[in-house]
Amino acid sequence: VQGIVAFISDFGLDDTWVGVCHAVIWEACPQAQVVDLAHQIPPFDIRKGAATAAAAVYQLPEAIHLVVVDPGVGGGRDDLCIVARSGTRLVGPDNGVLLPAAERAGGIVEAYAIDPVRFEFEGPLATFHARDVLAPAAAALACGVEPAATGRPVAEADLTAGPFGLCRLEGDSVTAEVLETDRFGSLRLNVPGERLTELGLDVDALEVSLGHNRISVPLGRTFSDVEPGEPVAVVDSSGWLTIALNRDRAQDRYGAFPGQTAHVRAGSGD
Amino acid sequence: VQGIVAFISDFGLDDTWVGVCHAVIWEACPQAQVVDLAHQIPPFDIRKGAATAAAAVYQLPEAIHLVVVDPGVGGGRDDLCIVARSGTRLVGPDNGVLLPAAERAGGIVEAYAIDPVRFEFEGPLATFHARDVLAPAAAALACGVEPAATGRPVAEADLTAGPFGLCRLEGDSVTAEVLETDRFGSLRLNVPGERLTELGLDVDALEVSLGHNRISVPLGRTFSDVEPGEPVAVVDSSGWLTIALNRDRAQDRYGAFPGQTAHVRAGSGD
Amino acid sequence: VQGIVAFISDFGLDDTWVGVCHAVIWEACPQAQVVDLAHQIPPFDIRKGAATAAAAVYQLPEAIHLVVVDPGVGGGRDDLCIVARSGTRLVGPDNGVLLPAAERAGGIVEAYAIDPVRFEFEGPLATFHARDVLAPAAAALACGVEPAATGRPVAEADLTAGPFGLCRLEGDSVTAEVLETDRFGSLRLNVPGERLTELGLDVDALEVSLGHNRISVPLGRTFSDVEPGEPVAVVDSSGWLTIALNRDRAQDRYGAFPGQTAHVRAGSGD
Repeated sequence: VQGIVAFISDFGLDDTWVGVCHAVIWEACPQAQVVDLAHQIPPFDIRKGAATAAAAVYQLPEAIHLVVVDPGVGGGRDDLCIVARSGTRLVGPDNGVLLPAAERAGGIVEAYAIDPVRFEFEGPLATFHARDVLAPAAAALACGVEPAATGRPVAEADLTAGPFGLCRLEGDSVTAEVLETDRFGSLRLNVPGERLTELGLDVDALEVSLGHNRISVPLGRTFSDVEPGEPVAVVDSSGWLTIALNRDRAQDRYGAFPGQTAHVRAGSGD
Repeated sequence: VQGIVAFISDFGLDDTWVGVCHAVIWEACPQAQVVDLAHQIPPFDIRKGAATAAAAVYQLPEAIHLVVVDPGVGGGRDDLCIVARSGTRLVGPDNGVLLPAAERAGGIVEAYAIDPVRFEFEGPLATFHARDVLAPAAAALACGVEPAATGRPVAEADLTAGPFGLCRLEGDSVTAEVLETDRFGSLRLNVPGERLTELGLDVDALEVSLGHNRISVPLGRTFSDVEPGEPVAVVDSSGWLTIALNRDRAQDRYGAFPGQTAHVRAGSGD
Repeated sequence: VQGIVAFISDFGLDDTWVGVCHAVIWEACPQAQVVDLAHQIPPFDIRKGAATAAAAVYQLPEAIHLVVVDPGVGGGRDDLCIVARSGTRLVGPDNGVLLPAAERAGGIVEAYAIDPVRFEFEGPLATFHARDVLAPAAAALACGVEPAATGRPVAEADLTAGPFGLCRLEGDSVTAEVLETDRFGSLRLNVPGERLTELGLDVDALEVSLGHNRISVPLGRTFSDVEPGEPVAVVDSSGWLTIALNRDRAQDRYGAFPGQTAHVRAGSGD
């Protein structure tokens, strides 16, 4: 989707920050379409911001992703513009929040430290890079500016590491973790749905170890593939392997939490 | 209002779902104007979704109403496109969530089960019909596609019943129920403001029985028609007969809750 | 930013009110760009609404500011259109909610009581002036209507007073108050950043008395100017002098609350 700026932040909806960034983008590039993906990331929660961005690049690969979760704003860290192998572009601070999304989108091809002066921001406000550097850079990309024109190249090895990586295949088991829980209490694992075959998980049923729970679940297409209250594994709209209960909350039943380790293997199906 | 897609869901604002649907609609029909009416319907609360949609069709009769509260997503239920007698168009799942709105808009004139293949969705994601079927269908309507082109006709008798109906006149009393409470604690009853005369309620004062409460209220134009803390009945912006307190919360004072029965009759006014 | 309508209200996001106002503005002036600044002002909280509007006019001076926090809706108070010395235009009820913003924007130059009939609203709904009077007036301004064409002139002296004023210099100390706390727990004082020199506060360090707390803080550019957990004073994106902790919540540590008095003076810096 050309021209869409997909906006994620921890700004919440109680203050004026989100709207001010909308105004800045609209002024700089009126043909850009800003889409609000999520602004209620808990303050400074880089992990949750990164998980949300990693879903977003799967859902909207052609958008420009503006991701602002930035506890170190004004402290000298760089503002980044990243181009991933899929062509997806990401704009945000160099604190790891962009990296899982970039990995999900095929890995980093180019990365730039945004130079505020190129956008004529001689004096960006030290507490509001989102308004003065990041949003204007996203607007410039939406209006056709090349990523390389946003600043100086930086090496991938010099970027701050992401808060989590993707799952690992170890023997006949996949070591994963709970990335996040959604509004309906479903558990998203850092297992990309598009890699199930390669991981040996493209089967009828899975065995999932999660804390004290050993969960046998069919791998279905949707929550309604099982009876109400029963567990099911699906690849949900975020593209992650997801453990859910039909019309109930897996998060509550299993006492699961973001960052918790999960072991997943092919199950017997009975 | 031609071209407006009025969007209601239980998606909340913490995940990316609402924004992804915006992107889909914008891509399919750039001239559509998406208006977010309410996305914090409690998960799976068909009753609240239906009450909100029934207010929305009264407020924006010319819009295309996209209503997504869908506990059975992927479970084989149909996706519907409904045309009401007023001309209002509604898009959403066949689980009753659209029916009070259709009744409020004059009743169903046409109903279609949306065929995903007509929109070139060979494989809609079983967990995200909002993105893959419902939003694209709403976008198509916004760009001029005829409702009949969205799928096969279905008979009204075959649709899933709505979670509530409109009030009934029984003798000299109207049997109603509390549809919902609003942010200010006001109580909306399923009594359409435009039917007050026909129901014998277009009078100076009402008597309302609600649980253990017998409430005598003037029928006013606005909350300020009574002293602070005093009750008043008004037809509010949703078009429903509403019991409110001036600058206080009727919901708390009367212990009222959605679904509670209310009996309303003409009062003595003293 | 010509043509932007910056929208603040206490409508919350659970009901359809915000979206209905969007639809009204879009219908009346399709080229207007509505930017949602804040809709979760606590119900009827004129003070919080006024503080948010006073930040907004600093952040978006060229926008038309639509501010709806209106406990007295329908009670005979006027709907206002105000032009400030900076050129900023404000639309909202005559209950004081616009006045701190107008003062921040240089003071009132013109004020009008909006005449609904000029907008062809013969019968605005008494409970929803936002939809029937205020939003249409903002849309008209966005499409080039002159403020003087919205209604009859009113004298500044006849307007309802604002809920707070700006800080006062008394001897070598500035008497201020906590305007509001933000999502990150920072404390905004009613001290305009652009007046620090005039107030004798453009120094390296400040002494702030706040309840039982005597806080010595460096005056920095950003939160990261101090170690994590340490206090710092900055002029934040709202343009107010703000007391914050690096990556922690000043509101909680100091037990601060909106309306609390603060005394600020130049500090010794050690």
